[in-house]
Amino acid sequence: ARIEYLERKLKVRQILESVLKGGDDAVVQWTNRFDARQITDFSQLCVRQEELESAFDRLDVTVRDALETAHGRIHRYHVRQQQHSWSMTDDDGNLMGQEVRALDRVGIYIPGGRASYPSTVLMTAVPAKVAGVGEIVMTVPAPEDVLNDSVLGAAFITGVDRVFTVGGAQAIAALAYGTETISPVDKIVGPGNDYVAAAKRLVYGRVGIDMIAGPSEILIISDGNCPPLWTAIDMCAQAEHDPSARVILISTEGAYLDSVLRELPQLVADLERGEIVSESLEKRGVLIRARDLDEAIALSNRLAPEHLQLVVAEPSRWIGEIRNAGSVFMGRYSPEALGDYCAGPNHVLPTAGTARFTSPLGVYDFQKRFSYIDCSKRGAASIAKVAAIIARDEGLTAHAQSAECRLYCKENHE
Amino acid sequence: ARIEYLERKLKVRQILESVLKGGDDAVVQWTNRFDARQITDFSQLCVRQEELESAFDRLDVTVRDALETAHGRIHRYHVRQQQHSWSMTDDDGNLMGQEVRALDRVGIYIPGGRASYPSTVLMTAVPAKVAGVGEIVMTVPAPEDVLNDSVLGAAFITGVDRVFTVGGAQAIAALAYGTETISPVDKIVGPGNDYVAAAKRLVYGRVGIDMIAGPSEILIISDGNCPPLWTAIDMCAQAEHDPSARVILISTEGAYLDSVLRELPQLVADLERGEIVSESLEKRGVLIRARDLDEAIALSNRLAPEHLQLVVAEPSRWIGEIRNAGSVFMGRYSPEALGDYCAGPNHVLPTAGTARFTSPLGVYDFQKRFSYIDCSKRGAASIAKVAAIIARDEGLTAHAQSAECRLYCKENHE
Repeated sequence: ARIEYLERKLKVRQILESVLKGGDDAVVQWTNRFDARQITDFSQLCVRQEELESAFDRLDVTVRDALETAHGRIHRYHVRQQQHSWSMTDDDGNLMGQEVRALDRVGIYIPGGRASYPSTVLMTAVPAKVAGVGEIVMTVPAPEDVLNDSVLGAAFITGVDRVFTVGGAQAIAALAYGTETISPVDKIVGPGNDYVAAAKRLVYGRVGIDMIAGPSEILIISDGNCPPLWTAIDMCAQAEHDPSARVILISTEGAYLDSVLRELPQLVADLERGEIVSESLEKRGVLIRARDLDEAIALSNRLAPEHLQLVVAEPSRWIGEIRNAGSVFMGRYSPEALGDYCAGPNHVLPTAGTARFTSPLGVYDFQKRFSYIDCSKRGAASIAKVAAIIARDEGLTAHAQSAECRLYCKENHE
Repeated sequence: ARIEYLERKLKVRQILESVLKGGDDAVVQWTNRFDARQITDFSQLCVRQEELESAFDRLDVTVRDALETAHGRIHRYHVRQQQHSWSMTDDDGNLMGQEVRALDRVGIYIPGGRASYPSTVLMTAVPAKVAGVGEIVMTVPAPEDVLNDSVLGAAFITGVDRVFTVGGAQAIAALAYGTETISPVDKIVGPGNDYVAAAKRLVYGRVGIDMIAGPSEILIISDGNCPPLWTAIDMCAQAEHDPSARVILISTEGAYLDSVLRELPQLVADLERGEIVSESLEKRGVLIRARDLDEAIALSNRLAPEHLQLVVAEPSRWIGEIRNAGSVFMGRYSPEALGDYCAGPNHVLPTAGTARFTSPLGVYDFQKRFSYIDCSKRGAASIAKVAAIIARDEGLTAHAQSAECRLYCKENHE
């Protein structure tokens, strides 16, 4: 695994450097190579707004309506995340404050091929839009020239500004460094495979990134008062993402764990993605019997799961105990699937325990703040002395003089 | 520079791995080697609370008062940054919301030796404290056993929980991985040298980090209506940090640039850190004549400076035009030095253009959010259909079933 990781990193570094030097041409070459395409000019990688619109028009009307309903709900939730500028004044007339600005330009990376999801377009582009980002650039690979109408339709609904059918490390490089055609962005968000994750890690610092995503995971805490079949289906839903998806079920009732287990074989056998589900459950599934809910929640806080289903009586009584989680799904009527698509909160969430220090993707990821001070003559005098004392203590005498000259200097220009 | 960078990274990787494996002992060995100390037991690296208090008591009373005044002002400003939980309900009785939690445990890295600054203790520990962080662990190297009383005193004022006299990559490793004595933290913040920056970049993902800091920088925009001597002193204050600190002065008045330039030689000659100042100004100082303020501000937005002094008439008229900056200092009575120590806003700021996507260090760096949904039976039914349609469109049929069973399944347990 370590060797694989290092080889991947080397490869990704090579791709990044080649795009940095070669721009559009390098992007075309990597795209032809990795995505089995025959592009001769970079312009063939640009998707025009009219194409987004016609993809939207081609959608089945039920899908179109569902995406628009989801868009509306996600939008309404994220509006609540907007941050606002504020200021304060002290008794000496010094003004201090914090201004909020949207990022000028962001890139959203959407995976392609089999796992190309319109819901991820909504979840990444809506908060950017709500934040007021100047330009949203989306990249999505189109292996063998295949593009997903739902993905393009979701980009149309959300108002994505530019779309390029580029994927992998070459997409991250183009967004971070810019090419002749693509202007460099300030931040790159969105999920991707191991190459995308490695590339994001390497360009971090030059641009911002949202997080380094690992395999998806769910932890279900159940007191046993939910149909075992529902819980079994919820487990399968998580497991169908990926053979390395992780499912953990914790219950205070041993008999309940057994009942859920009994539901699984038939369920898995009937599922379209049954093979992925059984591989994931066998390799990474865990059932845990907990002494009581306190123990279950303590374990959950230690694991900091991406998704936490809290299927207990009066879940709101327990929410205060939750310290580390990406998103919490409370009670039997709130399966993760509702949150994945349309409840409102974001589905781009911290994995692998990073919920200890990372929040869900949100409007705040597309805004930054700067502070300011605007001192009055009198106000500056009152704090300049304090500043000068600490500056001298730190040995920074030019700092001290800079503060003090506001007190004592002759003001030639007043 | 590239070779230097790679050698440093290799060295840092070696230190990280050795602390990961060797724990306390490895930290002791690296500390003895890099900081010229003769530690035989890890406990000698722990600073007890009584030692913080006696360091505080030893401080000159003017310094002590200045630190306490600064602490009070910084605290009052940061309280305004607190984030709050919220929730919303839709027409079908679905509850959605966002909970805010403080990080459980954070590490603050304080540089040691010549550049050991109490102000940096205040600027990193106060927002952590305001956020409600459970445990604040501070590391500061003590080369040749020398510790700075002001630094320890500032830790005492702020209420830092644990202090270890460890520095460099070995401190970052101990905070990220934990050792027998140090519990691993969730996030590491604070400035440091190139080794510290490289180590922070490598542990990012396992723990959160605030930012990757580069050399400090200031951009001063002046319309010429400020004593040239003041501007010259402000430039020296920035330059005295470090030979690679960067100073840029932009003015619409060519004659003003000349006057500022004339003030510098005498000023630099009299400064304690005159050599550093002249090296920085010669190597990295830039004077620019701008056509008008619009042009000056456009350039500033492109550079996204860490510090921006906006020394123009009615600076508040221009603040709306500022898009990218770490902190803005408005008018002639607001030199950066006031903000560095005691105005209130934070002095840990994004450098090297990263203000395009990074905010000043703040309370929000020590809090994380999680979202939740709590659907009613009726509410789940209304959105489950939407979720199922999109899930099927994405080929995730277990997701669709997970949503739909809440609609149709027989509820064994009701």
